[in-house]
Amino acid sequence: MSQDALVVFTPSGRRGRFPVGTSVLQAARSLGVDIDSVCGGRALCGRCQVVLSEGEFAKHGVHSCASNLSERGENERAWEKTHGALGEGRRLSCSTEVLGDVVIDVPADSQVHRQIVRKRAEVRDIELDPSVRLYYVEVQEPDMHVPSSDLRRLKEALDFEWRLTDLHADVRVMQHLQAALRKGGWKVTVAVLDGERITAVWPGLREKIYGMAVDVGSTTIAAHLCDLQTGEVVASAGKMNPQIRFGEDLMSRVSYVMMNPGGDAEMTREVRGALNALAAELAAEAGIEIIEILEATFVGNPIMHHLLFGINPIELGGAPFALATDEAVTGLWATEIDLHIHPNARIYALPCIAGHVGADTAAAILSETPYLTDAMTLIVDVGTNAEIVLGNRERLLAASSPTGPAFEGAQISCGQRAAPGAIERVRIDPATLEPRFKVIGCELWSNEAGFAEATVATGVTGVCGSGIVEIMAELYLAGIIDQDGVVDGELAARSPRIQANGRTFSYVLHESEARTLQITQNDVRAIQLAKAALYAGIRLLMDKLRVERIERISLAGAFGSHIDVKYAMILGLIPDCPLEHVASVGNAAGTGARIALLNRARREEIETVVRRVDKVETAVEPSFQQYFVDAMAIPHKCDPFPNLRMVVELPEAKVGERSGAAGRSRRTRRGRAQGEGAPT
Amino acid sequence: MSQDALVVFTPSGRRGRFPVGTSVLQAARSLGVDIDSVCGGRALCGRCQVVLSEGEFAKHGVHSCASNLSERGENERAWEKTHGALGEGRRLSCSTEVLGDVVIDVPADSQVHRQIVRKRAEVRDIELDPSVRLYYVEVQEPDMHVPSSDLRRLKEALDFEWRLTDLHADVRVMQHLQAALRKGGWKVTVAVLDGERITAVWPGLREKIYGMAVDVGSTTIAAHLCDLQTGEVVASAGKMNPQIRFGEDLMSRVSYVMMNPGGDAEMTREVRGALNALAAELAAEAGIEIIEILEATFVGNPIMHHLLFGINPIELGGAPFALATDEAVTGLWATEIDLHIHPNARIYALPCIAGHVGADTAAAILSETPYLTDAMTLIVDVGTNAEIVLGNRERLLAASSPTGPAFEGAQISCGQRAAPGAIERVRIDPATLEPRFKVIGCELWSNEAGFAEATVATGVTGVCGSGIVEIMAELYLAGIIDQDGVVDGELAARSPRIQANGRTFSYVLHESEARTLQITQNDVRAIQLAKAALYAGIRLLMDKLRVERIERISLAGAFGSHIDVKYAMILGLIPDCPLEHVASVGNAAGTGARIALLNRARREEIETVVRRVDKVETAVEPSFQQYFVDAMAIPHKCDPFPNLRMVVELPEAKVGERSGAAGRSRRTRRGRAQGEGAPT
Repeated sequence: MSQDALVVFTPSGRRGRFPVGTSVLQAARSLGVDIDSVCGGRALCGRCQVVLSEGEFAKHGVHSCASNLSERGENERAWEKTHGALGEGRRLSCSTEVLGDVVIDVPADSQVHRQIVRKRAEVRDIELDPSVRLYYVEVQEPDMHVPSSDLRRLKEALDFEWRLTDLHADVRVMQHLQAALRKGGWKVTVAVLDGERITAVWPGLREKIYGMAVDVGSTTIAAHLCDLQTGEVVASAGKMNPQIRFGEDLMSRVSYVMMNPGGDAEMTREVRGALNALAAELAAEAGIEIIEILEATFVGNPIMHHLLFGINPIELGGAPFALATDEAVTGLWATEIDLHIHPNARIYALPCIAGHVGADTAAAILSETPYLTDAMTLIVDVGTNAEIVLGNRERLLAASSPTGPAFEGAQISCGQRAAPGAIERVRIDPATLEPRFKVIGCELWSNEAGFAEATVATGVTGVCGSGIVEIMAELYLAGIIDQDGVVDGELAARSPRIQANGRTFSYVLHESEARTLQITQNDVRAIQLAKAALYAGIRLLMDKLRVERIERISLAGAFGSHIDVKYAMILGLIPDCPLEHVASVGNAAGTGARIALLNRARREEIETVVRRVDKVETAVEPSFQQYFVDAMAIPHKCDPFPNLRMVVELPEAKVGERSGAAGRSRRTRRGRAQGEGAPT
Repeated sequence: MSQDALVVFTPSGRRGRFPVGTSVLQAARSLGVDIDSVCGGRALCGRCQVVLSEGEFAKHGVHSCASNLSERGENERAWEKTHGALGEGRRLSCSTEVLGDVVIDVPADSQVHRQIVRKRAEVRDIELDPSVRLYYVEVQEPDMHVPSSDLRRLKEALDFEWRLTDLHADVRVMQHLQAALRKGGWKVTVAVLDGERITAVWPGLREKIYGMAVDVGSTTIAAHLCDLQTGEVVASAGKMNPQIRFGEDLMSRVSYVMMNPGGDAEMTREVRGALNALAAELAAEAGIEIIEILEATFVGNPIMHHLLFGINPIELGGAPFALATDEAVTGLWATEIDLHIHPNARIYALPCIAGHVGADTAAAILSETPYLTDAMTLIVDVGTNAEIVLGNRERLLAASSPTGPAFEGAQISCGQRAAPGAIERVRIDPATLEPRFKVIGCELWSNEAGFAEATVATGVTGVCGSGIVEIMAELYLAGIIDQDGVVDGELAARSPRIQANGRTFSYVLHESEARTLQITQNDVRAIQLAKAALYAGIRLLMDKLRVERIERISLAGAFGSHIDVKYAMILGLIPDCPLEHVASVGNAAGTGARIALLNRARREEIETVVRRVDKVETAVEPSFQQYFVDAMAIPHKCDPFPNLRMVVELPEAKVGERSGAAGRSRRTRRGRAQGEGAPT
């Protein structure tokens, strides 16, 4: 024992004594220290790099110096020849022997379960632990006298070298197995799914495989390509959902199916076609082959989910809105949805929750983890349908609110989808009523020098979601619209930007030769209707949970740029909350898909969590109508918004005035909701 | 307790007391008595029929009379209206209440695990326990306020009514689930695979599903369609393997692949096409839809197996003859081999054993169960390759012997495949040397009145396998060929049937206007070579096991009609054995496929057994050549055949004479073996 060397690993702090000559990798493994390796210690993959910490470590009682490790040998030089020099102070732990006491640091990128750090402090980092992992093995050659199939010998090697027992392998692997073994000289890299199933075999050492995380939205399909060895996003792409030609919103697509037998199959074909195009685009962007993508995870609302999987969504078009399945789709061949990535690639789809609350909501919950906190947390995911989740580790409620596509730019006269040229930020000077704005694709404000030149290519074409929220809030702050959303026609005397349209007034945001961008009274109403539906839904969930205060808000949605949460609150899109606890989180559903791609334990986690989520049908609640009417006002007829008022000075409410406006709006609202097949 | 009724079930003998009013089915279930039911006691399926045994049963202490059962009620009358009258004394146990003490007989056809009796006493009957079973359930309708998917409610119903828990269901089921539930008014029949996985859902009650057991031979593909509720074979069909156009025997097919890249894919397409045609033929014959076939089991030699599953068989064409896999193929979608039966049907293929010993041999072992007996058992499966299995419960050996296609009629001047018009039985009068014979498709011997008329349609076209074995043995018994297989030219003086062909002689079996069927010296040699290869292989396995006596022989093969084992032994195709323990078992491989189809426990059984089978490479054994030479003689140069001699008087051996013949044959043999790519 006395001549054994003491090895201390950081950051884990694990330590042990080993005979001189033990490799650092062996020492790490026997202590359960997390060091990655694909090649199994053959100095091929370079994943097991460590750094010697030199010096006197009093707390460990170790004097750690370079001479206590073996010198750089042939293995490391050979590796450097093909891969380039090892980083400063780095060694391949598989090829470095312990000669005396040492302190060894395992850098994050050498850990199997490395953390992928997310930007926001309040959310959990992603621990890398993908379903598919690579293992390099050397397989015994066949012997006529001991007949044993190639598969059996491969499995024996995986058992012997990696302790992977009872593996399954399906026919698709068998079809390529023998050629791979012979081409690789009996050395192959194997992809193993969930530690249970061989899904691919390549000759020789393969160091990279990829996964795809996809959010299938009604309007946009967004996808990330991730390196499954590092967790890194190596390419991102978005694409219009081609189903749009069958109907802009969900209900019009279900109507299409009702009226056109076989329409579901048409839409299924369309979305699958788009997925293949996206996969090809991602692969091209990352410079990889499409067949290097071994797995894909999917989220989407229930109708997108069902259409993707070839399930007729007709039942989701009317009460009682029964899902075909509310289970996660696991281990399905990608070819079953005609997705042509690796021929043996698998699909995972998060579970849907209820008829109107889909896998996208489940994914947003996974991203924002309200189930891990005591703080009363609200997640609002704004799209053509808005999904609302409220709760904490005690209980979670979910609802959907048919806000309509106003926040995505539809139904607004100057609205457009987020694209270069779209206005995304707006400020209005309360004194002059003059606006300034920013468009997507240009860093300058419209009143800054060079703006015109910088936007020649794109033009200023419309206003996207985040811009719409800001302009409505700024119109209110500048006194151009009042609490009830009425454009003040008297201001026409003060500014040419206020213009009469028959009996109502508009605000001109921008004029160019091509077109005039203005906010009409109807535009304001459309936004009021949308935000009132959303707010009323939130209010109902608060009632159900008997809470009056929300402690944390995640505002998600494809607004173009991240929405400015202050403006969302001024508009009354979200309830009052300390602003520092309100985050604009972008595509939370897409993030959830990525988490499910990178960490398989999270799949089980969200599958369990969604079973505890209680679905609330807001439209059938008796108090919904009153909440809706109250929420038509900006920010709200009666809710005081104390946190917001500490940061922003809101115009004084003109109580009692023009209360009829809300009443009219309510009737409009009901008509629209029915027309779109909203729950009744 | 005292007013409870005593119910005794036969044949199980299980008994118990139940409150008056308990249904007979309930009583049976609580005692674990095996009574079938698909509809779960709703008087719909009629599977739970029982018979009251009336009278005094002293040994049970029961006076069993009709008045101790409830009278025939509405349920039974309703059932009879749609299904016809219940058999004499039969009742639906679900709709019959116990009113007093009774003895209830459960007929075999009402048992879930009924026995399918096989004709031969020495083999095990098949206990019906298929992988796929039907369950009828009534599913809760959806409720918007308690959102739960249709799948979840279906699974709850299966759990509640049938205790089927943790079921999986894949996307292919989900795609049809909602329509089936609504069409059936929330009453559906579900097919469950292995108690684990929902594979199909039909509206209402479905009472029948089918399975297909297929033996993919190099020459012929044979299939049985079985009713999975009764185990009955409802249709059988055979088809030429269309791969034949790529080569008659296995090695020529592998050569085709070697010489034509993509040739494996061509052959895979061909065999799969033939399977679809076979499935359609079987369905038509049985009067069912092809999509009512829910499962298919497959056996075949390694090359047929690999080609069927799209695995290039090239490695099986040369040493070390490595299989891609020697595992059973389980739970694979039929669509993965392009087999278009039910879209969610599954495939099971028995495991291959070694490079030359395939799933067909595994199936023959399963059919003949040598592993269950102490008797030293030999299974010989004669095809283009002969497979040999020898052993008992202690140990099993297997080998393949490249006999060539002589026993299938190829390489024989008058040989043909088994088909109407082919001679299958032959007798030769030793005095007159005149033959008589029978042809397939006619019950008369050729010397009986009316034979000519009866065979006008087919003609007498050639000699099939069983006929070839018989004529060779009869030629020997009549003294026309001697122990060494030489046709005795001196007999030409006695009979015009002996004719000179250059330096050798032939025997004319039949002459017609169309053609002359004769056995030439070359034909005799070809059969000698084939049977010597087989016998030498058997001898080697006997050596390995150190046994001199074989106690049981199963002779399998597609000889046309079952081969007469006495003639096989006279010819020396099989070693000596008491004739009453030699059975001609026909297509044992096909029977094994059928057993695997009907009883899932047998699948695990054979998967375990084959792992214990030791493969012997006969061609590389040093003693093979000598055994081969000795086995050229009829029946054998030195083995005494004592059992055979007790039944048949064999001609005296002319020791020492013409021993050179065997030597010449040996050289011929080696040339042929190499030409066909036999193991060397």
